[in-house]
Amino acid sequence: MPKKNSIRPKDEIAEMVEAYIEENELKENEKLPSERFLCEKWGINRTTLRNALARLIKEGVVYSVRGIGYFVAEKKLIRNLQDLRPLVEIVKEQGKELTTVVLSSHLVEADESIAKRLEIQIGERVMELIRLRYLNGTPSLLEYSYINQSFTKGIEDCDFNTNSLYDTLERVYQIKPSAGSQKVSISYATDNESKLLQIPEGTPIFFLRGVTYSEGEQHPFEYFKSIIRSDNVKFFSTLRRKEEF
Amino acid sequence: MPKKNSIRPKDEIAEMVEAYIEENELKENEKLPSERFLCEKWGINRTTLRNALARLIKEGVVYSVRGIGYFVAEKKLIRNLQDLRPLVEIVKEQGKELTTVVLSSHLVEADESIAKRLEIQIGERVMELIRLRYLNGTPSLLEYSYINQSFTKGIEDCDFNTNSLYDTLERVYQIKPSAGSQKVSISYATDNESKLLQIPEGTPIFFLRGVTYSEGEQHPFEYFKSIIRSDNVKFFSTLRRKEEF
Repeated sequence: MPKKNSIRPKDEIAEMVEAYIEENELKENEKLPSERFLCEKWGINRTTLRNALARLIKEGVVYSVRGIGYFVAEKKLIRNLQDLRPLVEIVKEQGKELTTVVLSSHLVEADESIAKRLEIQIGERVMELIRLRYLNGTPSLLEYSYINQSFTKGIEDCDFNTNSLYDTLERVYQIKPSAGSQKVSISYATDNESKLLQIPEGTPIFFLRGVTYSEGEQHPFEYFKSIIRSDNVKFFSTLRRKEEF
Repeated sequence: MPKKNSIRPKDEIAEMVEAYIEENELKENEKLPSERFLCEKWGINRTTLRNALARLIKEGVVYSVRGIGYFVAEKKLIRNLQDLRPLVEIVKEQGKELTTVVLSSHLVEADESIAKRLEIQIGERVMELIRLRYLNGTPSLLEYSYINQSFTKGIEDCDFNTNSLYDTLERVYQIKPSAGSQKVSISYATDNESKLLQIPEGTPIFFLRGVTYSEGEQHPFEYFKSIIRSDNVKFFSTLRRKEEF
């Protein structure tokens, strides 16, 4: 005889809420049914429901308005972890708006760690590009790019508030970002990051870093780091077996 | 003239420490140089260094022993986000040991959210398999699998403490896990998860969920969820452009 789940997955109720939103095609900013309705529907008590909703608030799936109820949050940006296209394309595809503010764009001397990743000598020149990127007006991604300057003379004078880095590389320097690898970990917003991203200090954030190669090149042209708000962006990847990745 | 970085990436010192560990090929559990040595080497003050080290402790890169100093932590398991091979293979490749404890293995009736993911009717039977997986003795991954029972009669009687799920599927049921997709987000350990994974409640954790397809099948045979300690596991993905993912 089939039994009921013995160990309830932590997010079982949270998943029910998410499934409810999907099934009923609730739109962004649409109100969820009352707590009482959901408790009766699933035969659970208020505390259980509220715990699940608290989790979903933290995860950026719903938000609450005091005295009124719970609402569907804006859909997160979904980013394919294998996709090397410019962010602006990915954002547009999902009907969102990307705004970019350049915080720094100038030449620096490579320190130990940058030199190591770019496979150049310490002290060689690299372009440092730091961009804060807003999704629908919310600061969501803080991106550091270090570009091997030997490939890209003069690139630091380009205006990356309005131009895509990858498009510029391709158009002006014939550098086609075509391969790379990145590590994905969880880190915690520092004081400075928390101010830029408008989140409390110490908030868990996605921390991506990696290198990018141009078509046919042996050495990476870019070393990048991204600090990403997990309540605004989620990632997905496709799975395969025993093939080349 | 190249300038020095104006906005210091949050983890610049943290990265210097990581680069130092790599350059000097410090092994797991090997001691780092003294705080004084590192401060002098990089021309920074103790507070700056300690902040970076505190971050690295939180991220699971180093650990400290009171009164003695800082040590290199055990290397994290590195998991390719596209790799669908059994975990045991990946763990072995990296010279680590995997132990599996089955917390639940029996038939349940699919609830709304499971039915939706597996593309079956609510109430249909699925095997629920819940496994706690230890890396070198540390509980690191809590994995939920829901297997469409119509493909796998009797599978709930198999002992998954010692057998790999995917190997069993292939060997006994001719189900070859060959494709899938998963979402990667950050969540927070619940009370129950925190006890199982031996971390404080509310610790940020990786939350993966997705579905897996067998070769040539239209419907997923598995819906899975994994709660993963980010201090023990990190992920990577390869990047490509404009190709099929």
